[in-house]
Amino acid sequence: MALKEQIEEKAKRASLAAKKLANLSVNSKNYALLVMADALEEHIEKILLANDQDLANGVVKNLGKPLLDRLMLDETRIKAMAEGLRKTASLPDPIGEGIGTICRPNGLEIQKVRVPLGVIGIIYEARPNVTVDAIGLCLKSGNAVLLRGGTEAIKSNMAIVDILTAAAYDAGIPIGSIDFIDHTEREAVNVMLKLNQYIDVIIPRGGAGLIKTVVENSTVPVIETGTGVCHTYIDESADLKMACEIALNAKISRPAVCNTMETLLVHEKIADSFLPNMIAVLNAESVEIRGCEKTRVYNAAIIQATEEDWSTEYGDLILSVKVVATIDEAIEHINKYNTKHSEAIITKDYDNARKFQKEVDAAAVYVNASTRFTDGFEFGFGAEIGISTQKLHARGPMGLEALTSTKYLICGNGQIR
Amino acid sequence: MALKEQIEEKAKRASLAAKKLANLSVNSKNYALLVMADALEEHIEKILLANDQDLANGVVKNLGKPLLDRLMLDETRIKAMAEGLRKTASLPDPIGEGIGTICRPNGLEIQKVRVPLGVIGIIYEARPNVTVDAIGLCLKSGNAVLLRGGTEAIKSNMAIVDILTAAAYDAGIPIGSIDFIDHTEREAVNVMLKLNQYIDVIIPRGGAGLIKTVVENSTVPVIETGTGVCHTYIDESADLKMACEIALNAKISRPAVCNTMETLLVHEKIADSFLPNMIAVLNAESVEIRGCEKTRVYNAAIIQATEEDWSTEYGDLILSVKVVATIDEAIEHINKYNTKHSEAIITKDYDNARKFQKEVDAAAVYVNASTRFTDGFEFGFGAEIGISTQKLHARGPMGLEALTSTKYLICGNGQIR
Repeated sequence: MALKEQIEEKAKRASLAAKKLANLSVNSKNYALLVMADALEEHIEKILLANDQDLANGVVKNLGKPLLDRLMLDETRIKAMAEGLRKTASLPDPIGEGIGTICRPNGLEIQKVRVPLGVIGIIYEARPNVTVDAIGLCLKSGNAVLLRGGTEAIKSNMAIVDILTAAAYDAGIPIGSIDFIDHTEREAVNVMLKLNQYIDVIIPRGGAGLIKTVVENSTVPVIETGTGVCHTYIDESADLKMACEIALNAKISRPAVCNTMETLLVHEKIADSFLPNMIAVLNAESVEIRGCEKTRVYNAAIIQATEEDWSTEYGDLILSVKVVATIDEAIEHINKYNTKHSEAIITKDYDNARKFQKEVDAAAVYVNASTRFTDGFEFGFGAEIGISTQKLHARGPMGLEALTSTKYLICGNGQIR
Repeated sequence: MALKEQIEEKAKRASLAAKKLANLSVNSKNYALLVMADALEEHIEKILLANDQDLANGVVKNLGKPLLDRLMLDETRIKAMAEGLRKTASLPDPIGEGIGTICRPNGLEIQKVRVPLGVIGIIYEARPNVTVDAIGLCLKSGNAVLLRGGTEAIKSNMAIVDILTAAAYDAGIPIGSIDFIDHTEREAVNVMLKLNQYIDVIIPRGGAGLIKTVVENSTVPVIETGTGVCHTYIDESADLKMACEIALNAKISRPAVCNTMETLLVHEKIADSFLPNMIAVLNAESVEIRGCEKTRVYNAAIIQATEEDWSTEYGDLILSVKVVATIDEAIEHINKYNTKHSEAIITKDYDNARKFQKEVDAAAVYVNASTRFTDGFEFGFGAEIGISTQKLHARGPMGLEALTSTKYLICGNGQIR
């Protein structure tokens, strides 16, 4: 069979399975998740063997060290994946949850309930743990899932999917509910993006290039995730010790992730008292600073920030710094250059805190806390399928609820119009 | 300026206006809506003059009578539009509404609030009342709106938009919040569909062709609306008098709209007692019936339904009828041919009612009521921008809430991770 027909066949099967999955009891889903977790741990050797092949191919292809590290699995990481599945089993089931009943004057009772989306297509890069997370969360929310992972992790992903599907189907999950597209050609992605008949939503997870390709080419609805150009603004009334601690945390605790600060904005009235120490602290942590003219006054070694810097997600120990004259200038800068992900103000001023939260356009707007908290687990969702940076359907960290749609159930006794 | 630049310019202006609109008080928005309603009534003559031109052009272009009727405005219809704006002013403001606060163990307070989507693009056909409705609902929900109406109503739409924008801007609404694209070329639609930088969502309203074009070509997120192949299934345990009344209402009360029944499914055990009378009643109302083999037994004049009939939205006094052996066959038929809009079962059986509501995949699933109730006003939303037939973001009738997104406001006191 040609590539297109093969993918269509899998998607069609997933769409048939989704109809059965939608009405599976929460007990059946949880039982399967626990069986799948056990299966992962029973087959650690098999997964490691496959992972070795990916790593060897990665070395041949000259993948960088960070990428190889993300690709690498060991016993601890596989056990953590299994724990993730058990954690997902313990979460409340969103399906069937009533979210309001309207009783109309004519006697109609209109109940709104959560239902699965149907078939979720996930297109992702590198990390094999995404495979396990996505399968677990889609199953728990009653959705069939069609995965398409990157070339780098293909052997690991296929081993994981083999183990998980065998365990799931043994445990009574409808066949076709979980599938993996093992074609590494780009064409495979393009085929998925046009399967509106079978796929209800596509979630891309990966770099800006992948997300752009998906958004531009998909006719299936997309939930855009991920890229984060996040700011921290130090207001003139900020507690400077707190400001320094939060800014440092937002930059260095995990520089590669999307909720990391990329630009620090500082009110000019406190620049003298704040920036010299902040710069010293950042320098001590090997953070490269690219600053505006006013920032460079404090340290001649600071490189001049270019227009491009203001909109760059470094994903690294690099930070752009700008001194602003007013909170309005800070808000304007943020709304111009941000990716609508996470933004923070450090302030003691009540009006400024409210103004910043109201006027900054982002999924998460913080007062006196690090942007690093934008995360499904930190928000208490118990899970995360990604962080939506679009405004439709879901915004910010997406837990199980983001993988659901709704349906109106209307009970009448003969009403006509 | 070339067409592309002109449309981009309007979209950019709308996106700037949206930032101001988002924080406008509900009093300011309501005041503007009332002023706009008065302005419509003050300029009835101007609107009618423009409408006369559209009607004259329609006659030249040989538009059919139903289309000309939908295009036609008179004093009553214009006053109804003005009343619509006043009604919108009286609805609760969805913006700023809190929908849950999470208090985390580390002291972070995470509040989820409703915010506007930003800029909404509406691409629609024929009826000029959509222009007024869309402007009113977008303004009330704090969104800027960019309209692109059909060629047939271009003069009427432009007159209405001129009157409403003048009134709105006089009343303090940010300039650029409401705009109309007066290019009637198809190219104008294609330009809009790619303006991700400025437009947050596109809502197409119109025939299947328009909706298909938008879904297939838009890189901006789309909310799919409208097409309805709706079914009514008469279960073996149905109250046959109620079944006949509901089926008749679902077919004839307004055959051109999307929540009208297109296919009637009848359990074979009650076909003998139900169908002869039902067919007679439908015939009396001039409904053309296209039936399966078993249906045609009851009336030799009934045409044989083809495979195509089962998936056709007639939008007219035509009905396909099929006799089924079981409720499962009915559900399977529906899930195969429906557009996931509205479906009904007529039954006295508790288990069958529940089974149907669980297993049928549609935005609205009725027991013992007419599918004609799928409507924002009938659901008590006080407004309707369209009926979503997709699963993402909004499903079923969309009121003001469907025109909002959310934002997390997080208050801390120095939390780092």
